[in-house]
Amino acid sequence: MRILRVQYRGRIFYAALHDDHVICLNKELGFPDPIPLREVGVMPTVMPSKIVCAAVNYRAHGEELGHDLPEEPRLFLKPPSSVIASGQAIVLPPDSERVDHEGELAVVIGRTARNLRESEVDAYVFGYTCANDVTARDLQRRDGLFGRAKGFDTFCPIGPWIETEVPDPDNLAIRTVVNDTVRQSSSTAAMIFPVRTLVSFVSRVMTLNPGDVILTGTPEGVGPLRDGDEVRVEIEGVGMLINPVTASAQTDAAFEAGVQ
Amino acid sequence: MRILRVQYRGRIFYAALHDDHVICLNKELGFPDPIPLREVGVMPTVMPSKIVCAAVNYRAHGEELGHDLPEEPRLFLKPPSSVIASGQAIVLPPDSERVDHEGELAVVIGRTARNLRESEVDAYVFGYTCANDVTARDLQRRDGLFGRAKGFDTFCPIGPWIETEVPDPDNLAIRTVVNDTVRQSSSTAAMIFPVRTLVSFVSRVMTLNPGDVILTGTPEGVGPLRDGDEVRVEIEGVGMLINPVTASAQTDAAFEAGVQ
Repeated sequence: MRILRVQYRGRIFYAALHDDHVICLNKELGFPDPIPLREVGVMPTVMPSKIVCAAVNYRAHGEELGHDLPEEPRLFLKPPSSVIASGQAIVLPPDSERVDHEGELAVVIGRTARNLRESEVDAYVFGYTCANDVTARDLQRRDGLFGRAKGFDTFCPIGPWIETEVPDPDNLAIRTVVNDTVRQSSSTAAMIFPVRTLVSFVSRVMTLNPGDVILTGTPEGVGPLRDGDEVRVEIEGVGMLINPVTASAQTDAAFEAGVQ
Repeated sequence: MRILRVQYRGRIFYAALHDDHVICLNKELGFPDPIPLREVGVMPTVMPSKIVCAAVNYRAHGEELGHDLPEEPRLFLKPPSSVIASGQAIVLPPDSERVDHEGELAVVIGRTARNLRESEVDAYVFGYTCANDVTARDLQRRDGLFGRAKGFDTFCPIGPWIETEVPDPDNLAIRTVVNDTVRQSSSTAAMIFPVRTLVSFVSRVMTLNPGDVILTGTPEGVGPLRDGDEVRVEIEGVGMLINPVTASAQTDAAFEAGVQ
C-alpha cells in the first residue's frame, strides 16, 4: 500500500493512494471516499521527531569522497525543519557554492523501538520511501561536522509516499536523475551495512519513535544541483521523489505541489 | 520567572515556580492554585523539535581536545530522545568506556525564527536553562561524527526550569560539579561566539521553532562520569541541573524526581 500525507479542505491526514484517487485513513474526519487525487495537496510524507543518517554506507561513495570505510555505522542527524515533500523546491543557500544531491532509501519507523535485534527490525518498520540527503559539500568539508552542511531548510526531500510492501529492501535499484541525466545508479545490495543492521544499530543508541526516519546512505555519483534543475530519486518498488531546485526562497504556494 | 514543565494528576503542563508551590499556566485545565511543589513530578523542561549544538565555543576547551578554533560556529544536533529532566539518571551505555560531562548554557526559543539579525535575537528567546551535553568521548573520536557519541538516550539533561529573566547571558558564571568536586568553572563571557551571534547564525541555516534548544558549548575541564556519580551544572542566575549517573537503565520511577 502507498500511504500519502495530504492536505484537503484545511485538514491534514494520511491517505491510501489508488491510481487517481485517495482514501482517507482517518475516518473520524468524515470525508466521503474516494477523494480525487487532483483535489489534495501533498504534504511531506512524514513529520519525524528525528532523522538519523548513515554517513558512508556505499563503498564506492566513500571512495569518491576519499573517506575511510567505516567498521561500524557513522551516524549524524538532519533537523526535522529540513523536510520537504515531493514537488517542493530545494532552495540553494547563499552561503554555499556547491550543493549536491544524495539519493537514498529511507526507512520509516512504525513502532517505538529500542535495542532491536536484526531479526526484530521488520516488525518495527512501517515502510520505505525515497529521500534526498541534500548537502552543501563546501560547508561539509569546512566544518567537519554536518549540522550546517546538511541542515538547511529544504535539504531533506522525502516522499512521495510510504510504500508498506517492500519484500527485500536490500535488493532495490536506486537512481538519482538530474534533468534526465542519470547521476547515481546503484542497488541497495551495495550497502556496507544493510537495512536491518543499520536500524538495529541505531536502536541500540537511541529510542526510535513512530514516524522517525533512517536514511541509509547514498551510492557513488553525487554531484551539484543548480538553479532551475529538477532532481529525481527513483527507487525500484518504492517510488519516485521529484524536486525542483531554486536559488531563491519559494512562497508557500510550492507547498501545494501535486503527486509526482 | 522560572517556568517548570510538570506532571500532576495525569496531566502535563507548564507552571510558574514560586518557592514551595507552582501556579499552573494552562488555566483550561482547571487546577486550583497554588499546587504544592512536592505534589508535582518534574518533566524535562522542554520537548524540542531539535537541539542544535555548537561544537567548540570556548577557547580553552578547544585546546584541551586539540581542536582548531573555528572561524564560524560548527554545528551538530542531538536527538530529542536524549532529553531527560533534572533528577533523572544519565545511563552509561555499555558500548562506551569513557562518558564525559559537558556543562552548557542552553537557549530556549520562544517564537518561530528564521534569518535573525543579532539585534533581533532577544525578541525570539523565551529563556535560558542549564544543559549537560553528555558525550561518549571514545566513540566521538572513533566516529568523527557525533550522532552516536552524543545521541544516546539520557545524554541531554536539560533543566531544572526555564529562567525568563536573564539580563546578560554573555556574562554568567558556569560550573560543573561532580560529587562536590568542581570540574568545570568558567564564564559565558569566554565564549568564542556569544549567544546572540550563535542564535543568529543557526537561524540563517534552519528555521527555529518554539521550544527548540541551542546548546552554546562547554568550557574546559570536561571529564569522566562513573556509575554512582552525581553531576551538577550550575549557571549563575539561571539554575542548577542535577543528575545521578548509573551504569544500568532506570525504571520510570526516576521520572518522578523532584526539583533540585
